[in-house]
Amino acid sequence: MKNFDSKREEFTELIKKLQLKITEVIEKTDGEAEFQIDNWKREKFGFGSTRVIENGQVFEKGGVNISVVSGPLPKTLQQNPDEKESDFFASGISLVLHPRNPFVPTVHANYRYFELRDKNSNEIKDQWFGGGADLTPYYLFKEDAVHFHQIHKTVCDLTHPAFYPRFKKACDEYFFNHHRNEARGIGGIFFDHIRADENTSAQDLCEFTNNAGLGFIDAYIPIVNLRKDMNYSQQNRDWQEIRRGRYVEFNLIHDRGTLFGLKTKGRIESILMSLPPHAQWRYNHNPKPGSKEQQMLDHLKEVNWLNI
Amino acid sequence: MKNFDSKREEFTELIKKLQLKITEVIEKTDGEAEFQIDNWKREKFGFGSTRVIENGQVFEKGGVNISVVSGPLPKTLQQNPDEKESDFFASGISLVLHPRNPFVPTVHANYRYFELRDKNSNEIKDQWFGGGADLTPYYLFKEDAVHFHQIHKTVCDLTHPAFYPRFKKACDEYFFNHHRNEARGIGGIFFDHIRADENTSAQDLCEFTNNAGLGFIDAYIPIVNLRKDMNYSQQNRDWQEIRRGRYVEFNLIHDRGTLFGLKTKGRIESILMSLPPHAQWRYNHNPKPGSKEQQMLDHLKEVNWLNI
Repeated sequence: MKNFDSKREEFTELIKKLQLKITEVIEKTDGEAEFQIDNWKREKFGFGSTRVIENGQVFEKGGVNISVVSGPLPKTLQQNPDEKESDFFASGISLVLHPRNPFVPTVHANYRYFELRDKNSNEIKDQWFGGGADLTPYYLFKEDAVHFHQIHKTVCDLTHPAFYPRFKKACDEYFFNHHRNEARGIGGIFFDHIRADENTSAQDLCEFTNNAGLGFIDAYIPIVNLRKDMNYSQQNRDWQEIRRGRYVEFNLIHDRGTLFGLKTKGRIESILMSLPPHAQWRYNHNPKPGSKEQQMLDHLKEVNWLNI
Repeated sequence: MKNFDSKREEFTELIKKLQLKITEVIEKTDGEAEFQIDNWKREKFGFGSTRVIENGQVFEKGGVNISVVSGPLPKTLQQNPDEKESDFFASGISLVLHPRNPFVPTVHANYRYFELRDKNSNEIKDQWFGGGADLTPYYLFKEDAVHFHQIHKTVCDLTHPAFYPRFKKACDEYFFNHHRNEARGIGGIFFDHIRADENTSAQDLCEFTNNAGLGFIDAYIPIVNLRKDMNYSQQNRDWQEIRRGRYVEFNLIHDRGTLFGLKTKGRIESILMSLPPHAQWRYNHNPKPGSKEQQMLDHLKEVNWLNI
């Protein structure tokens, strides 16, 4: 029998601190708007803190949420028969930022910890980590894409050299609008059901999450500062809103987290805070060949950003 | 063995004529924009005509599409084992109109015919009709809701007195955003898998579809003409776009037709032409108590419009 080292308390403390730190940096970067805080509780089963920023100078809309839930494992989550008698624990941080300026990319990140225990003995039967971060630019600045990937590679390498190539590939596969045959953005890292093994302890995975959460700041904020004061036209803005329509399509059609939240009757405003402030749909819209918009589309596929 | 009366050719002719008639009336009502026509073909398996109007005086975006497809019944559509050896035929018209003025409601209608045949003998094994029409106002004018329902009741009664009450109820149940616990709009009629029986022949159901398709014009166009020149503010427009966000949520999360189209790799621009030109999402947006916006929300539930 495997010896599990519970990370319930440690991980929950970790995401609370990350939420504080990240919202602080975002408010400072915005310079105007402040997060609105909605703390919520679910009788017996958990709590969360939804923090939303709207109508800022830099950030048009965004949220940095944490939630800590537990209870009997719902049927929809049971993957094999012996899990019937299990209690689960899930703790996570999730963020999305939609900036106003079309030259500043939208960003998403989320990190979570999951634990299964036997209902009767309360022994841990399984535990895993999941998460990732990905960038959705509207206009391509190759150096920004390289920077975002480089920081995440550095963070990954601190824990295990195999992480970045594996998680980068998984990210390209996951954030893909299959019905459009195009990626949501330029990727990043994505991982799920990562368990401790002989090389990497649960403690290592906790530290990896912390590094990745803090790395998010280094990966994203410099890009914001570099692009947030660029001039843009209504045409740039329209393009941003059309692409945000694709973001909506991904989140409502494909995103497992969103669909899981909707099916399990989670707090709807926390789940859908990821949706953009404005989106457009035009019939059969195609950018002009050779345009900056077309150049962006041409890169919505698997690209090895650290070797271009 | 039931004796089936195929309506392939007749129904297909019927929806072609409906498409012509409806697009003609819409262009006349708009007074400016014209439908863009995209005819498409799928090798062996069918054809369609996607007709889209954009940036009109009255209609900001809309489409009136027909499609006629056939072939071996896809696995995802097989409901019992003996359907393995079946060919299907499906013919339908589908329309959505998103007007510019927030006081003019969005409307949706679709009518379709389905046939199953034995692969070897080519005998018909089953046939049914489906469809409906529903109205999504942003501001409530009770008389408009009554008018829309009254016309559809009249059309239903021509074929069978049980149709309207049954189809009205099914509409309230189907066009419901379960994750928000609110209806998409004020309903209309909805029916699926309606088969010929001793009271109603396939011929009757064909005529019913034709009446309903033409009834759509009488049900909707007078409302457009009544409201299209009303003055509106940016605040009215914002509310319209927020509500259109809910329309997007319904179509991408719940609508069986959309999800079926996406899963079976249908023509993506035809399937998603139903999405609105502009949509907004604001965090936890709630209209003021007693406002016109709140009054609309209060009616997004089952209401007996013909007896208020």
